[in-house]
Amino acid sequence: MQERIKVALDAMGGDYAPEATVQGAVEAVKEKENIKVFLVGKQDAVEAELSKYSYNKEQIEVVPASEMIEMAEPPVMAIRKKKDSSIVVAMNLVKNHEADAFVSAGSTGAVLVGGQLLVGRLKGVERPPLAPLLPTEKGVTLLVDCGANVDARASHLVQFARMGSIYMEHIVGIPNPKVAIVNIGAEEEKGNALVKETFPLLKECTDINFIGSIEARDIPKGDADVIVCDAFVGNVILKLYEGLAGTLVSVIKKGMLSSLRSKIGAVLVKPALKETLKSFDAEEYGGAPMLGLKGLVVKSHGSSNHTEIKNSILQCAAFNEQRMNDRIAAAIQKEAPGSDGGRE
Amino acid sequence: MQERIKVALDAMGGDYAPEATVQGAVEAVKEKENIKVFLVGKQDAVEAELSKYSYNKEQIEVVPASEMIEMAEPPVMAIRKKKDSSIVVAMNLVKNHEADAFVSAGSTGAVLVGGQLLVGRLKGVERPPLAPLLPTEKGVTLLVDCGANVDARASHLVQFARMGSIYMEHIVGIPNPKVAIVNIGAEEEKGNALVKETFPLLKECTDINFIGSIEARDIPKGDADVIVCDAFVGNVILKLYEGLAGTLVSVIKKGMLSSLRSKIGAVLVKPALKETLKSFDAEEYGGAPMLGLKGLVVKSHGSSNHTEIKNSILQCAAFNEQRMNDRIAAAIQKEAPGSDGGRE
Repeated sequence: MQERIKVALDAMGGDYAPEATVQGAVEAVKEKENIKVFLVGKQDAVEAELSKYSYNKEQIEVVPASEMIEMAEPPVMAIRKKKDSSIVVAMNLVKNHEADAFVSAGSTGAVLVGGQLLVGRLKGVERPPLAPLLPTEKGVTLLVDCGANVDARASHLVQFARMGSIYMEHIVGIPNPKVAIVNIGAEEEKGNALVKETFPLLKECTDINFIGSIEARDIPKGDADVIVCDAFVGNVILKLYEGLAGTLVSVIKKGMLSSLRSKIGAVLVKPALKETLKSFDAEEYGGAPMLGLKGLVVKSHGSSNHTEIKNSILQCAAFNEQRMNDRIAAAIQKEAPGSDGGRE
Repeated sequence: MQERIKVALDAMGGDYAPEATVQGAVEAVKEKENIKVFLVGKQDAVEAELSKYSYNKEQIEVVPASEMIEMAEPPVMAIRKKKDSSIVVAMNLVKNHEADAFVSAGSTGAVLVGGQLLVGRLKGVERPPLAPLLPTEKGVTLLVDCGANVDARASHLVQFARMGSIYMEHIVGIPNPKVAIVNIGAEEEKGNALVKETFPLLKECTDINFIGSIEARDIPKGDADVIVCDAFVGNVILKLYEGLAGTLVSVIKKGMLSSLRSKIGAVLVKPALKETLKSFDAEEYGGAPMLGLKGLVVKSHGSSNHTEIKNSILQCAAFNEQRMNDRIAAAIQKEAPGSDGGRE
């Protein structure tokens, strides 16, 4: 049998932990024989959940961690102080090569800080971005960056484009993915200072398929496979996507219940509509990878249910099988052989 | 009879000009007796359209302009060179006090440049923002800025907050409007450099009702009445709003037509749905004002139909009746009595 991919799961992270995390882990190991999950968290609570299921005992192991990092805690302080928190213990498994990947639905800030401080950057990577998949009319688009790099530089965005391109090609399976930069017009001379500086650098990259600017209105159409921007803009796009989709669906539901006639219609369209909107639901696509680290770090949505947790774990297997970190390290090194990767 | 508000309309601007512009003007003067519209554009084309309607001749006057500024033209050059374009001729009417307001569905860039260069800023205003209304679950939110100030400074955003607040209170009729800054988290320490610098300045403003940060996910809920951000972020929000709403509605329509059962349902829900989605349609609310100029400049959507043009014209009447520019000038002057208003 091939060697198992080892995933350290923050069993205490997210709104529905540890129920959803434990259930997701059980479902993942049942679906793939080549995965082993370390359930990291409060031993009693995790074992109590785990006792509800039957599964292959070789594929799940509980690793005790007595502390928890709360959503509102300042991340740097939390990572430094709470040495026995589920996030720190699980990330240290990756750091010490006892696990290949880390998955958490907990505090995004703590995951971003822990990724940098504990797991560490690959040589040459200036800033590791967080890259969620956005649903579009045609499939999905990778949005790089939604992480901590709010005042990013042009060189960061160029690396985001390279790393994102590799991810879409090898994990999502889009050959020669189209890369675009978020802009406020299609022309090259448009944009803020960062975009104007980054655009010509992206044009020079021979290892990516750069198609130019994308306006926000065209993102939902799926005109690009990878879109790069600083994390402030990326966060606005991601959050508005979620918020507006939620609001529109609720407005539409209210509209359907406004008369007897439309109520009857609503009953008839409901199943088809549910199916269609599912394809527009980020939950189906697993978590957002933090790219450019020495191990895989996946941030799952805070409101993740067991399916999203399961998908995030399964995603780790693909990442490892594709030797993603080797590919990213090679691409970054090729471009910047002199970089020490640790300079700020 | 009270004096008529004089509106200079760019009759050649927008995808459906001059049909939609002329029809919108006729509808506006029929609805309000105290409006006079100057239809500025190619005389033959405008008069041919106008001959289709009957209206009070005192309320519409054709002003010839032989040139047109195209959407793709570099705006600064176009405004400087095309002295006989509909935009330049119409804006000069405002500059020379022959008209109170200017409305165009043409090139946004040309309108922004013309607003600054021809109409001119009110004393003390550093950067005039473009401020469209976004539909929300609760009504509308004013988004300041979506104009040309992509690399804005903190002092600009503070003025945007003041001017936006005055607009929402006196034109849209929201008493003590809630003002928020677009951010990537609710806490004061979150944000990029611009937001971190602006936040404490907004907190100090005693003349606005500042409620703190708003995350993009909460914008569609209508949690704030005025939201401020630099124009790059504002443009991303506005365009994603339009694009995502359009995509979702088309995805939902497709879903409804996917089975016979749901097709029947679709027929039954259609009228109610149409009514609901109408409330989520920016078209109903007129154009986006450019705030802080010596005359009113309103940018209507490029795809404006006659209703949107009509609403943009009617909006000018409210602006004038409320003496908006006096209010803005007073608010800006009060805060910065030493400013000369023309310094870059």
